Amino acid sequence: MKILLKISYVGTAYCGYQLQGEKPTVALMLNRAAKKVFGFECNVTGCSRTDSGVHALGYCLTVDPVDEKNEITVPLDKIPLAMNTALPRDISVLCATWVPDDFHPRYSVIKKEYIYRIRAGEIRDPFLDGRVMELGRNIDTLSIENMKKAQEHFIGRHDFSAFMASGSSVKDTVRTVYDSEITVKDNIIEYRISADGFLYNMVRIIVGTLLDVGKGKIKPEDLPDIISSKDRSRAGQTAKAEGLYLNRVFYN
Amino acid sequence: MKILLKISYVGTAYCGYQLQGEKPTVALMLNRAAKKVFGFECNVTGCSRTDSGVHALGYCLTVDPVDEKNEITVPLDKIPLAMNTALPRDISVLCATWVPDDFHPRYSVIKKEYIYRIRAGEIRDPFLDGRVMELGRNIDTLSIENMKKAQEHFIGRHDFSAFMASGSSVKDTVRTVYDSEITVKDNIIEYRISADGFLYNMVRIIVGTLLDVGKGKIKPEDLPDIISSKDRSRAGQTAKAEGLYLNRVFYN
Repeated sequence: MKILLKISYVGTAYCGYQLQGEKPTVALMLNRAAKKVFGFECNVTGCSRTDSGVHALGYCLTVDPVDEKNEITVPLDKIPLAMNTALPRDISVLCATWVPDDFHPRYSVIKKEYIYRIRAGEIRDPFLDGRVMELGRNIDTLSIENMKKAQEHFIGRHDFSAFMASGSSVKDTVRTVYDSEITVKDNIIEYRISADGFLYNMVRIIVGTLLDVGKGKIKPEDLPDIISSKDRSRAGQTAKAEGLYLNRVFYN
Repeated sequence: MKILLKISYVGTAYCGYQLQGEKPTVALMLNRAAKKVFGFECNVTGCSRTDSGVHALGYCLTVDPVDEKNEITVPLDKIPLAMNTALPRDISVLCATWVPDDFHPRYSVIKKEYIYRIRAGEIRDPFLDGRVMELGRNIDTLSIENMKKAQEHFIGRHDFSAFMASGSSVKDTVRTVYDSEITVKDNIIEYRISADGFLYNMVRIIVGTLLDVGKGKIKPEDLPDIISSKDRSRAGQTAKAEGLYLNRVFYN
């Protein structure tokens, strides 16, 4: 048995989730905390890479807490608080559950959901610094209606090559988008997208494209063409990492 | 004529508002930004001290932007964005207006309002780190009803010596509290208090006392006695700076 941890983190201070030697990464902090809590190096495996500056509200990972003597040194219900004591304050373990040994936090994922937050307004909000994309212009300078029309075209099974960072080596670029939704509350535009998987920078390029639609640079009805072109240069710019949140991962 | 700026800041990185030589303070950042924007050292005067780690949503200060030649080098409507370009991202100028020369941002204040935010729950929220007091326990372990009863006793004109940090040299310790209110939304307990002025650490000691009431250590009906005792040791502990926000200052 392994332990599945759900965590939340502010990505601002980290070079992403994935371990990169001694660079500050979320995985490095988890490895160190797990070693403190369980008393030995644990096998910590994450559900996904996240880019530098990207946040997570419900990231999942597994920890193998069984020591050489085949003993578990910390009871399950004590693990979240024990880990949080050992973790920096921008990472928090929300809950812990047992999962079978053949469960893999990355390969067992059937659906992932991301949220992207854009704050409209000319004056930035210091309390949201690094946690939203500051648009730097008022919301009435964007056509939210056109953005809503445009995003519907992402739903379904498509080759998303046009929405993949150039240089990515992934071969299968077909993904199925299940949900795509734009909501506006006060001056925060929130884009929510779920899929069976995402190509590198896919959400950020989709958001950059939707902003081009909002600004009138791209028409909503051009989206099917842009998608089928498989041409990265026809989609919008990659939106900043700081507005992106891995919201949920789904398992069977 | 001087310019009144309303600003918002996250206090986490600063040793408070007030200038302390080259220590990182909000005032130091404003002085530097004003010099960049206006091209010379401006006279920057704040409305209030704030402690290290305390935040502000609507802090007011004046800047004298008239140079030696009696000229104003930056038009009023350009000042917020120009200042924000020169300021760190945890400080933001919200708006700018002209005020007469005899206006003083501190002495002209007739009312100040503070907010204190407490987050209930055993698991901390990394996105609110440094921006709330993390209670570390669930909300049902507090009697919000008793806290609401207790806070009513602060309203009115009282000698608040019992709620002043020891060692403070202020002579007149009588203040008039206009409003005092506790609201709960999800797991955030928000306390809002306005007065004609506040003694040193007064809001934080009031909050510490209200938490003692919530936990059953102090009875709501004991508050009048604690106030009239003028005895600091009878009030609760000073609540952490990180939950405190200077929300508004009022002028005639």
